Amino acid sequence: MKATIYKGDKTFGVIEKEIEQPLNGEVRIKVAYSGVCGTDVHIYHGMMDKRVEMPQTIGHEMSGTIDAVGEGVTGYAVGDKVVVRPLDDRKVKASDKGFNHICEDLKFIGIDSPGSMQQYWNVPAFTLHKLQETTDLKLAALIEPLSVATHDVRRSGLVKGETAVVLGGGPIGLLVAMVAKEVGAQVIISEVNPTRIAKAKELGFDAVSPLEVDLVEYVKSKTENKRADVVFEVAGVQPALDIMCEVAGICGRIVMVAIHGVKKEVDLFKFFWKELSLIGARVYEKEDYEKSIQLITANELPFEQMITDVQPLSNIQTVFENIDKNPDGLKVLMDCQL
Amino acid sequence: MKATIYKGDKTFGVIEKEIEQPLNGEVRIKVAYSGVCGTDVHIYHGMMDKRVEMPQTIGHEMSGTIDAVGEGVTGYAVGDKVVVRPLDDRKVKASDKGFNHICEDLKFIGIDSPGSMQQYWNVPAFTLHKLQETTDLKLAALIEPLSVATHDVRRSGLVKGETAVVLGGGPIGLLVAMVAKEVGAQVIISEVNPTRIAKAKELGFDAVSPLEVDLVEYVKSKTENKRADVVFEVAGVQPALDIMCEVAGICGRIVMVAIHGVKKEVDLFKFFWKELSLIGARVYEKEDYEKSIQLITANELPFEQMITDVQPLSNIQTVFENIDKNPDGLKVLMDCQL
Ligand SMILES: NC(=O)c1ccc[n+]([C@@H]2O[C@H](COP(=O)([O-])OP(=O)(O)OC[C@H]3O[C@@H](n4cnc5c(N)ncnc54)[C@H](O)[C@@H]3O)[C@@H](O)[C@H]2O)c1
Ligand SMILES: NC(=O)c1ccc[n+]([C@@H]2O[C@H](COP(=O)([O-])OP(=O)(O)OC[C@H]3O[C@@H](n4cnc5c(N)ncnc54)[C@H](O)[C@@H]3O)[C@@H](O)[C@H]2O)c1
Ligand SMILES: [Zn+2]
Ligand SMILES: [Zn+2]
Repeated sequence: MKATIYKGDKTFGVIEKEIEQPLNGEVRIKVAYSGVCGTDVHIYHGMMDKRVEMPQTIGHEMSGTIDAVGEGVTGYAVGDKVVVRPLDDRKVKASDKGFNHICEDLKFIGIDSPGSMQQYWNVPAFTLHKLQETTDLKLAALIEPLSVATHDVRRSGLVKGETAVVLGGGPIGLLVAMVAKEVGAQVIISEVNPTRIAKAKELGFDAVSPLEVDLVEYVKSKTENKRADVVFEVAGVQPALDIMCEVAGICGRIVMVAIHGVKKEVDLFKFFWKELSLIGARVYEKEDYEKSIQLITANELPFEQMITDVQPLSNIQTVFENIDKNPDGLKVLMDCQL
Repeated sequence: MKATIYKGDKTFGVIEKEIEQPLNGEVRIKVAYSGVCGTDVHIYHGMMDKRVEMPQTIGHEMSGTIDAVGEGVTGYAVGDKVVVRPLDDRKVKASDKGFNHICEDLKFIGIDSPGSMQQYWNVPAFTLHKLQETTDLKLAALIEPLSVATHDVRRSGLVKGETAVVLGGGPIGLLVAMVAKEVGAQVIISEVNPTRIAKAKELGFDAVSPLEVDLVEYVKSKTENKRADVVFEVAGVQPALDIMCEVAGICGRIVMVAIHGVKKEVDLFKFFWKELSLIGARVYEKEDYEKSIQLITANELPFEQMITDVQPLSNIQTVFENIDKNPDGLKVLMDCQL
């Protein structure tokens, strides 16, 4: 079988290796597609070298079919279409209070242990979610990032008729916007990159640049002055933090999806004055995966248009080099059978 | 009748004036006690001169009895013991989404219009809450700040068996701590002022200085490593903002009670990583007043010990001068019948 490996120093390799038997409690998956995530790009940039044991196969946004079932695994059979929820919570403790998906000793499969950018992948069966026979495996590779979005929207409590402003129209922001729209909310995307604004419009969204329009006035004009019920911060920059408190209406909920590596300035007065809430959101839980599987299987949202490139495993090095050169692309999939 | 007035320049006066008839929809209250609030001290310091029309009678933490009932007022009779919820929400708009207590054009009675530091006070009847015949009028002057605390605790969703850490053991922090304890939570107060730590202990609380003990380790030791389920930020300083994200456990809720006039640094990474929530809280709603009236009437919490001084109206100038000299005192009441 073919496997890709990250070797450090912005370098991937493609190797041939033996197909391994699944251990007790594991299954072997014949991987169909594996999406490239922002985190994978961080790894490629060497920013996670302390955490990633090299050489390492990375990747965690995938779809595939069961190829072999290890001992002690029930409920799965060869040929089942599946996705992996790449959270290894086996070290969960009482002090995690049942929040297994973000438990203190969580291992993220594909970062802390081998990932999906290979032809066959052995994983513990507890990470699996079964797809339907009709689920498209290419779209199914979007289930992991889509589950970030379904989790974010669920945590926001967004309901039909409310207005959601999504700050940042990258892959995660667009998926959040899709899920928010599916809930029945009015959605406004704020994005600075003109190509991504055009893309968001192509996907049917109301998308504006905060550099060109006064975002707060724009949102007020679309909400009878109510401003946003929910704001998703998916841009990860200080200007988004500044505007999130302005664009949120009275008792607005702001979901912090972006990862801010250092402390940032926040207008806490506005939190007091308008009784805003800030809601941290990280990865997903079982029910978010189930919701995403439903959405992907129904295929009524413009998921197809999120996939801007599909490349064979053997091209992994150029795939990552090109992502750096082209900040406009959205989701690149590695076709793991090639 | 006697009335106090704030004249600007750190100066109060005491004047004699006619007792006025209540207008349509108003009642006249014979004020019993009027507490001095941190906001009143801000006004005295001239920090709100732009907002306060001078000369102005200030004060909004009060108790009293109905002295006259204006036309069109039903449900109230002379002699009824009452407190005022000093929120004038008559300019509420649709864009306030029903959150009347923090509506955009809210007027705060006692700041934006005459307050309670006088013998008789005319107010719109919609601001009234009736006390019970047995309610102590001295303690009842604490109902307004106590309602800040009942509001904060309600917004936190704190339940029995959880652990709440209160950052700041000033008057508001102590009231929050009392309400949190009454809910059945374990309460830990963090305070830097030794006199206030001693006071908190006297009131029966577990109180520590973050300058002397490692607060995070302390809270872990008291929670089997779970840390706090709820943190109340009632200190209003950067070190409290820094520690709030550390001391909060997984999925912890942080209530922002303190008023931060300028943007401050916040560790948003922790919001993402532990799925923390930040919950803004401002003043109170009807039900918070009702809860506070119950608590004050039952008188099972150490409210009495919150009142560190009672002074006649005529002493108003020295009262404010002394508050500046003594940061240890908690709640000073003006006895408005003297
Ligand atoms: N919470 C989680 O579990 C989770 C999971 C995945 C990703 N993330 C985070 O979500 C964020 C978004 O991920 P992504 O892959 O879409 O990233 P991305 O960088 O592709 O998208 C961010 C977008 O924000 C836009 N932007 C920059 N400045 C802006 C501004 N001032 N206003 C509006 N938009 C602006 C950029 O042009 C870009 O399109 C990242 O911070 C990522 O780390 C979080
Ligand atoms: N949300 C609302 O509606 C509302 C209503 C009233 C008051 N407030 C605000 O609540 C806050 C508290 O009010 P207060 O009257 O009790 O004020 P206060 O100043 O008397 O109390 C603050 C306490 O924090 C302590 N402190 C300072 N640094 C600390 C630290 N690093 N760790 C722990 N404690 C520290 C101080 O010693 C002081 O005792 C203020 O910011 C006030 O403006 C908000
Ligand atoms: Zn990912
Ligand atoms: Zn007050």
